[in-house]
Amino acid sequence: MSDETVRFDLPQTDIPHQWYNIQADLPRPLPTVLHPGTHQPIGPDDLAPLFPMDLIMQEVSQDRYIDIPDEVREIYKLWRPTPLLRARRLEKALDTPAHIYYKYEGISPSGSHKLNTAVPQAYYNKKAGVQGLTTETGAGQWGTALSQACNFFGLECFVYMVKVSYQQKPYRAAMIRTFGAQVTASPSDTTHAGRGILAQDPNSPGSLGIAISEAVEVAATSGGKYKYALGSVLNHVLTHQTVIGEEALKQMDLAGEYPDVIVAPTGGGSNFAGISLPFIRHNLKDGKRTRILAVEPAACPSLTKGVYAYDFGDTSGMTPLVKMHTLGHTFVPPPFHAGGLRYHGMASIVCELYDQGLIEAQAIPQLETFAAALTFAKAEGIVPAPEAAHGIAGAIREALAAKESGEKRVILINLCGHGHFDMSAYTAYLDGNLNDLEYPDEVFQEALTHLPQI
Amino acid sequence: MSDETVRFDLPQTDIPHQWYNIQADLPRPLPTVLHPGTHQPIGPDDLAPLFPMDLIMQEVSQDRYIDIPDEVREIYKLWRPTPLLRARRLEKALDTPAHIYYKYEGISPSGSHKLNTAVPQAYYNKKAGVQGLTTETGAGQWGTALSQACNFFGLECFVYMVKVSYQQKPYRAAMIRTFGAQVTASPSDTTHAGRGILAQDPNSPGSLGIAISEAVEVAATSGGKYKYALGSVLNHVLTHQTVIGEEALKQMDLAGEYPDVIVAPTGGGSNFAGISLPFIRHNLKDGKRTRILAVEPAACPSLTKGVYAYDFGDTSGMTPLVKMHTLGHTFVPPPFHAGGLRYHGMASIVCELYDQGLIEAQAIPQLETFAAALTFAKAEGIVPAPEAAHGIAGAIREALAAKESGEKRVILINLCGHGHFDMSAYTAYLDGNLNDLEYPDEVFQEALTHLPQI
Repeated sequence: MSDETVRFDLPQTDIPHQWYNIQADLPRPLPTVLHPGTHQPIGPDDLAPLFPMDLIMQEVSQDRYIDIPDEVREIYKLWRPTPLLRARRLEKALDTPAHIYYKYEGISPSGSHKLNTAVPQAYYNKKAGVQGLTTETGAGQWGTALSQACNFFGLECFVYMVKVSYQQKPYRAAMIRTFGAQVTASPSDTTHAGRGILAQDPNSPGSLGIAISEAVEVAATSGGKYKYALGSVLNHVLTHQTVIGEEALKQMDLAGEYPDVIVAPTGGGSNFAGISLPFIRHNLKDGKRTRILAVEPAACPSLTKGVYAYDFGDTSGMTPLVKMHTLGHTFVPPPFHAGGLRYHGMASIVCELYDQGLIEAQAIPQLETFAAALTFAKAEGIVPAPEAAHGIAGAIREALAAKESGEKRVILINLCGHGHFDMSAYTAYLDGNLNDLEYPDEVFQEALTHLPQI
Repeated sequence: MSDETVRFDLPQTDIPHQWYNIQADLPRPLPTVLHPGTHQPIGPDDLAPLFPMDLIMQEVSQDRYIDIPDEVREIYKLWRPTPLLRARRLEKALDTPAHIYYKYEGISPSGSHKLNTAVPQAYYNKKAGVQGLTTETGAGQWGTALSQACNFFGLECFVYMVKVSYQQKPYRAAMIRTFGAQVTASPSDTTHAGRGILAQDPNSPGSLGIAISEAVEVAATSGGKYKYALGSVLNHVLTHQTVIGEEALKQMDLAGEYPDVIVAPTGGGSNFAGISLPFIRHNLKDGKRTRILAVEPAACPSLTKGVYAYDFGDTSGMTPLVKMHTLGHTFVPPPFHAGGLRYHGMASIVCELYDQGLIEAQAIPQLETFAAALTFAKAEGIVPAPEAAHGIAGAIREALAAKESGEKRVILINLCGHGHFDMSAYTAYLDGNLNDLEYPDEVFQEALTHLPQI
């Protein structure tokens, strides 16, 4: 026992040289993206005001592999390859015959997987001569990652942070400022969109939808000086995240096992796609059968309770129309603590995989996720982000099912971030001040009546 | 460049099997520890009310190596070996010919090196049949580590947290509670010592000295049910931390270099000793010449401005008398942000090394340490704890000296913890609200008049 290894490390020469683009392998291609005004298919030029052409080309690329630039790999070396560990102590705590592994993206300097895409996004913008990036952030993981990435490449960075998060998580804002970015509580008086909201409600707590509007406005009206960056949902973002799964494939090999089931949380879909897409490639090509399980919050269940329809990506209806599993762009999730999962829609790639039966989905209520987080922390030491706790809760369900059936089941979790900036949520849980915050079905049904008519 | 490795990982089979006890190799043995009342040498039995006999025996052991129990190595596997990285981007930012390496202890689940000793301390107490441990914490790194360690071994844990820290750092308290420990703001009404302080000053913000008194009282009056644990200063604590240096020796080998200078912060001395003692062993035995540089805060400079004399370890004069570099046990450091370095004295081992000319020391003011922390964060991504920033500031001085003289100098830093729970200090720095908080020399001179007469 004493010389048994529970961590499976790759040398830095094994940092992937290419991202995997699943669009090349999808049995049925992704649905067309439509212009919000004309409802006609949009082309690369429609996106050019917001994104550099390299990223737009990745968005629509059908190439199976996309080379990772040397400059990006150099930055990846600050924390990649991330560790894969066998959760021996968690297995023991659950008394399960399952073997549980977790890929730990929380060791990234930004604290989550978000830096995997922030770095290439900053790189391609720098290469295109852009002077700075604008973005929004809710929980703060994405704002932190983009501020770091912009700092690495000498870009300015403007983060619109949902006001209620800005006030509740001052340390997140401090972290973002440490890397030289400017953080503005949203709604703000620095944009037309923000001023409009404040005129209606000077005390508006803000929302991700409003913050997106502010960030997009600053980029779109800058005459090309600034562009906009998004932390999830888009195809190129999911593609960048495949470094997680490519490494995990090699690490499971080192461990001498292959996952029967992969479990990861889904908000916009990027960490889930990051770990699972390379395994889905194997499922499609080599006939290996790994179940791929997306875990979403029961309070915002876009896959399990939404419909697969064209909808806007933002609340105000400014973005292109994308076919997605959606709760309706006007749906406002209750204030549960996994802020990174409070999104009405889902990445197109994840939705198409779900619709084609290539992945499963499960919704888990808030209290079960915090109970799972505590079980994990006490066994493995790491305090997971509330978002990551959804993956853990799903994995614990799998491990207990394996115990029930007496079968060995190899489970792989994507532990996408640590919870060091989420301790107020843990305090609320420990003090018994949390509940499941689930809406009755009527609320979901009402929100779906606002879908655009295509 | 693209395939150059900047991280040097060891497999888990290379987690040390033994701690290194430098008492076996000291040219002159450590000074005798004296009873606070009788001033006579104390023996193991005098310490038995507070510590289990295994730890007391390690405290006085002259054996060069002490076996690490399997149960402790199993827990070490949750995060060890910790990574060693070459700070290529920091070197570039400083434009120095120096090669800078850092050993990163912040990836431990508690966020610092403290867990290296918390785990064996909990283990030996469990083995001795103790039911729980009491301790104090200031900045919170130690309280977090001990709460995790007690959780791993099923021990109760009672943490007395300095009240002002408890109020300023609610997330630290939340983290400690997450692992099942009970956190009490000190001074409290749960102890005789605490009640005495509160009677004098109901609004007392507390101090490390008061919190120690409360924690010791609970253990000492529990009839053996509870014992007490200390996070630094004692010989056995420093010995446990040598896993850092033993790993670093092998990792520098992987990197194909050997340090010309090792730089680490010193408060009580444990992270400094942890990385440097194994290299000092080489200095003593093999004639290798690595300079070993302790960096202390200019606002609490026990090595550079204190005297080497017998003094109490605590403020109230209850502990045994130890010969140490001290500013006087009544010295109250100003409220600078590296709470873990706000200690009037220093570990006996570190003091003796300093007195024997085997290590150097340097005091660095607060603003320089935060400037260094920002330079490091922007280059390498990691936001260091304010304590760790002292080591970085010292290393940057070394790197700039190497640039000045045009020499290649191999520098090894112990990056002992991350700053995720210290972002309020960064906010204060970014807002221009910090200063150096150094006392005039008269304050130090006055404090030294209160040394006990031996």
